[in-house]
Amino acid sequence: MSDALARTPREAGFAMPGEFERHAGTWMLWPERSDTWRDGAKPAQRSFARVAAAIAECEPVTMGVSRAQFRHARASLPDSVRVVEMSADDAWMRDCGPTFVRDDRGRVRGVDWQFNAWGGLQCGAYFPWDQDELVARKVLEIERLPRYEAPLILEGGSIHSDGQGTLLTTESCLLHPSRNPSLNRSQIETQLRDFTGAERVVWLPAGIDADETQGHVDNLACFLAPGVVALAWEEDEEDANGAITRAAAEALSRERDARGRPFTVHKILLPPPQFRTEQEALGLDRVQRALPRPAGLRLAASYINFYFANDACIVPTFDVAQDTTVLAQLADLCRGRRIVAIPSREILLGGGNIHCITQQQPLASPSP
Amino acid sequence: MSDALARTPREAGFAMPGEFERHAGTWMLWPERSDTWRDGAKPAQRSFARVAAAIAECEPVTMGVSRAQFRHARASLPDSVRVVEMSADDAWMRDCGPTFVRDDRGRVRGVDWQFNAWGGLQCGAYFPWDQDELVARKVLEIERLPRYEAPLILEGGSIHSDGQGTLLTTESCLLHPSRNPSLNRSQIETQLRDFTGAERVVWLPAGIDADETQGHVDNLACFLAPGVVALAWEEDEEDANGAITRAAAEALSRERDARGRPFTVHKILLPPPQFRTEQEALGLDRVQRALPRPAGLRLAASYINFYFANDACIVPTFDVAQDTTVLAQLADLCRGRRIVAIPSREILLGGGNIHCITQQQPLASPSP
Repeated sequence: MSDALARTPREAGFAMPGEFERHAGTWMLWPERSDTWRDGAKPAQRSFARVAAAIAECEPVTMGVSRAQFRHARASLPDSVRVVEMSADDAWMRDCGPTFVRDDRGRVRGVDWQFNAWGGLQCGAYFPWDQDELVARKVLEIERLPRYEAPLILEGGSIHSDGQGTLLTTESCLLHPSRNPSLNRSQIETQLRDFTGAERVVWLPAGIDADETQGHVDNLACFLAPGVVALAWEEDEEDANGAITRAAAEALSRERDARGRPFTVHKILLPPPQFRTEQEALGLDRVQRALPRPAGLRLAASYINFYFANDACIVPTFDVAQDTTVLAQLADLCRGRRIVAIPSREILLGGGNIHCITQQQPLASPSP
Repeated sequence: MSDALARTPREAGFAMPGEFERHAGTWMLWPERSDTWRDGAKPAQRSFARVAAAIAECEPVTMGVSRAQFRHARASLPDSVRVVEMSADDAWMRDCGPTFVRDDRGRVRGVDWQFNAWGGLQCGAYFPWDQDELVARKVLEIERLPRYEAPLILEGGSIHSDGQGTLLTTESCLLHPSRNPSLNRSQIETQLRDFTGAERVVWLPAGIDADETQGHVDNLACFLAPGVVALAWEEDEEDANGAITRAAAEALSRERDARGRPFTVHKILLPPPQFRTEQEALGLDRVQRALPRPAGLRLAASYINFYFANDACIVPTFDVAQDTTVLAQLADLCRGRRIVAIPSREILLGGGNIHCITQQQPLASPSP
């Protein structure tokens, strides 16, 4: 395709805003594949519809849907949700959608990363992923927004921006040999800076246990505001996440952001370990070339996978006592936002959560 | 689907503008099916791309494309053309797309007619047509425009509006038993008025010969301006179109428009009869449930199937001497517009022409 912009966002003065900034809207994809989503994806579709409906109370939502599911998705979603035809290989708009960038004049453009389904033929979740590759492009076409094509293989869930020049990511994912084996850490960092406009990249060692993405940061840590990070936390040192979250905390304590500030870190306890049940495993199509998801396998449950919508915080819950504690904690940390809890077991079973299935499009407006 | 508006455009104060008024843009669909378009639709795709490129010099163009053809269509069209994924059973945006209506405040909405592929199981062009049925809806979703659902089976090519309360149509198509057999002429007229906001419906007896649509008006006559009609004309009384075009002229001479004006009629000579060649017929897939298109069959060639884009007139030509005469005549009749000639044989072979493959979206602005 011929029409990508020639320069990089950095050269043109564009950078990735924080998710907590105002949005023009949210993009999602409708779940459908029956080897990812049990019972023909019907329970997941109901959960996605709940997420879409909750966000649509805050800002415009667009749902991309296959030709086959168009009528059903349209009938399952509130009228306020825009439904557009958009093929995809699965439903992870965070990872295959565009990363939006904005300049000082408030103009918005999109970055179209390379995508290989979380690890390509080596450890990817499925094959092929040719339709996922077109999702960012299709989103930007609909919005008539200019497109940058980045040479880096990267999923949106593997980076967070503070909107002030700092990017948060993990070594376990971005340096994994299944992504960009020909690039070293410094070359990857250069591309991250060129295409997100960030000045400083803060590396955390690893994402949480059982994550099928080689450890996306968006299940481990996120910005609540510039200088303020929410971090998943496991008290139990016997649990794999005990060491992982401690290592992340230590990395953050040593780092400064792009403006030289130390990070204020708020620890959000992980829920008790979650596992796929026999019943849940039975509902999946068994096919070749997709990740096996047997009963007993641990699920990568984390409250950190919440999503900021305008004036709200859409939070996954796991039907455990700790939900209440965390919702109260987030209400305290995110003053001025409504806290919307959504039981997310069915999304979690697919390998991600609310943040993984959404992508924010920032408001086109000049920086204050 | 649940979200159609409850009232009719008429009740809400909306009406269909003239095509010659300013557009916000043009919608098209990418040709693909190999039983309509010869040689795997490749020659037709090049013609559609030429039409899109010509219109894109005047106003924004959006091309709806199937999942399978997305990459190829994107690479075949100028960057200025927006390409969106949109399944369809064929490529006739005029007929399955929405009819846009506008109110005095300049707000724009869409009418989603019922569609049965030009005659359903009785005499339709193919089966099934379930994706065509969704096209209007998908266009309006992308534009976030409210939708009226009309109970009438109708194709956009079967009506023309003068933007001042007058609708032009044909009896041969709208009263054909394959469309709305349970409705009589007066009931059909009531629905036309309710959903286009027209005050007066002017009926011409029949469309031109060999038209697969039971005679759409858009191959026979159109408005150049309120009160001014361009009419296809055949001098040869031996030709089937001799009687047809005379009957249309007589009907127009007896009629008045919604404001009581008689019509000024400009006759545009039809090109010499055109027939499908052996070579052209050979390039088609032969399948069941689509109209047979053998060699020797007459084609419904007419210059009237031109399209008004902003400041231009996109005119089909047929590689005959008469092209020059008609282009000069249209230049004279459409002062202030560029006349863009596009050789249209490949579109004609599919059963229509430039007007049939386009649909104008009027500018959202108050009436002057």
